Amino acid sequence: MSIRPLGDRVVIKKAIAEEKTKSGIVLPGSAKEKPQMAEVVAIGSGVENDEKTKGQLSVGDKVLFSQYAGSEVKMDGEEYTVLKIADILAVIE
Amino acid sequence: MSIRPLGDRVVIKKAIAEEKTKSGIVLPGSAKEKPQMAEVVAIGSGVENDEKTKGQLSVGDKVLFSQYAGSEVKMDGEEYTVLKIADILAVIE
Amino acid sequence: MSIRPLGDRVVIKKAIAEEKTKSGIVLPGSAKEKPQMAEVVAIGSGVENDEKTKGQLSVGDKVLFSQYAGSEVKMDGEEYTVLKIADILAVIE
Amino acid sequence: MSIRPLGDRVVIKKAIAEEKTKSGIVLPGSAKEKPQMAEVVAIGSGVENDEKTKGQLSVGDKVLFSQYAGSEVKMDGEEYTVLKIADILAVIE
Amino acid sequence: MSIRPLGDRVVIKKAIAEEKTKSGIVLPGSAKEKPQMAEVVAIGSGVENDEKTKGQLSVGDKVLFSQYAGSEVKMDGEEYTVLKIADILAVIE
Amino acid sequence: MSIRPLGDRVVIKKAIAEEKTKSGIVLPGSAKEKPQMAEVVAIGSGVENDEKTKGQLSVGDKVLFSQYAGSEVKMDGEEYTVLKIADILAVIE
Amino acid sequence: MSIRPLGDRVVIKKAIAEEKTKSGIVLPGSAKEKPQMAEVVAIGSGVENDEKTKGQLSVGDKVLFSQYAGSEVKMDGEEYTVLKIADILAVIE
Repeated sequence: MSIRPLGDRVVIKKAIAEEKTKSGIVLPGSAKEKPQMAEVVAIGSGVENDEKTKGQLSVGDKVLFSQYAGSEVKMDGEEYTVLKIADILAVIE
Repeated sequence: MSIRPLGDRVVIKKAIAEEKTKSGIVLPGSAKEKPQMAEVVAIGSGVENDEKTKGQLSVGDKVLFSQYAGSEVKMDGEEYTVLKIADILAVIE
Repeated sequence: MSIRPLGDRVVIKKAIAEEKTKSGIVLPGSAKEKPQMAEVVAIGSGVENDEKTKGQLSVGDKVLFSQYAGSEVKMDGEEYTVLKIADILAVIE
Repeated sequence: MSIRPLGDRVVIKKAIAEEKTKSGIVLPGSAKEKPQMAEVVAIGSGVENDEKTKGQLSVGDKVLFSQYAGSEVKMDGEEYTVLKIADILAVIE
Repeated sequence: MSIRPLGDRVVIKKAIAEEKTKSGIVLPGSAKEKPQMAEVVAIGSGVENDEKTKGQLSVGDKVLFSQYAGSEVKMDGEEYTVLKIADILAVIE
Repeated sequence: MSIRPLGDRVVIKKAIAEEKTKSGIVLPGSAKEKPQMAEVVAIGSGVENDEKTKGQLSVGDKVLFSQYAGSEVKMDGEEYTVLKIADILAVIE
Repeated sequence: MSIRPLGDRVVIKKAIAEEKTKSGIVLPGSAKEKPQMAEVVAIGSGVENDEKTKGQLSVGDKVLFSQYAGSEVKMDGEEYTVLKIADILAVIE
């Protein structure tokens, strides 16, 4: 069973543990929005059909995303977030 | 008697029972929006006429949709929701 | 005397009685918007001039529409609603 | 002295008396917006230059318009309303 | 010294005295917006470059404009209003 | 050291002293927005790339601008305002 | 490890110390927004694909940006801000 996001949406899986140990990314305490890290699980076909977004994201990419964006869903015991690609800020390489 | 949605709208039927037993999808308790599962019953002709949405959805697809989206209607004893395709988050395959 | 709607507007006449007896459509009690049934009386020329809406609606169609949409007017003893085609959700066939 | 509306605006003159006697139009008491009847006095050149509105309205037409739309002006003892054609709902024929 | 408005802006000079005596225009007391009369002093080049507005307005035209629109400026002892052409309702001819 | 504004932005330097003595411009006391005078110091390349704004403004022009628009910055002891060209109302010639 | 911003986003690193000593830029105390200085670290591919923004910004540029814009992230001990190029006001040269 898998999730195929519609339009310009993307499915990501939060990488909570790794975020604090391996990557060295720590979210600072401030009044600004604190993005979170996740891994891209699926990309909607609308992302590749849009000149502005095509080729910018691949399944498996580590990404920073707006923490208040998207909808959460649990499937086969795993939690995913379905959100628009516009809510993904950057890829960590 | 059937419902033909206008424009970029879709008619879905909530799959409440199945959601908890077979699919393994459970909506987590969180402050975020909780999408719901449903089955696509009818697709408006505007969906196929729009480059961004054509071919992405078929009648019979299991979908996740925004729970606050659309309008509910009961017909021949069944409850349906009429909503825009933009409010359908993903297809479960 | 008749009403010719301007632009992308449509004139409909609510089908209150029929809604409860023949069609079998009953609007459920919920917090969501409850659409109502009506019959299309007149269609603005703008509907046919727009690629997204042309050919989707005919005079005489039974439609579901957003109950809070449009403006009501009484003419020759009959009540009509003038609303935009975007506020018509679906056709009942 | 006359008023030439700019852009997609129209000048109308409310037909208050006629509304209640000859036409048979009575505005029902409801929570919805109640349109009013008027006669078209002048049409801005922008109306004819827009594919969506050209040819839909003529000087002398009886129209229904949104009662809260537009600006009122009194000229040579007559009251007029200057409003956008988008605020004219329908023509009574 | 003169004012050249930028973009789709226009400079006008209120015609307060004339408004009440010669033209016969009196603004009625109502809850709606009350437009004011003025004379066009300068027209931005953007007005002529826009298909929707070109040729509709000339320097010297008497116009009705939204009273809350624009910015006021006093220059060489005269008061002017700089506003967008979209805030000019009609020309009085 | 100089400031190169990005996109459709412009850098201006307020001409406070001159505004009251030489030019004869005095801002009237009213409830409306009171524009201020300034001199154009730099123009973003986006201004010349936009058909609607190109050629309308030159470095050295005296301009009226919305007083609440833009961001202030002090550089080499001088105060500048970085704002969008849309917030510049008119050129004083 | 590096950050690749998506779409029309840019990654910058605040230049707090330099801002007060070498550049001579001091943000004045006022009610307006106070932009901050930073150095451009990475530029999203969407910036170069947009006619309005391409070629205006390079990695290493000193920029002024809206202090409330963007999201902050700490990586390898350094703090970065991910923001849209539209929130970058100007380049200091």
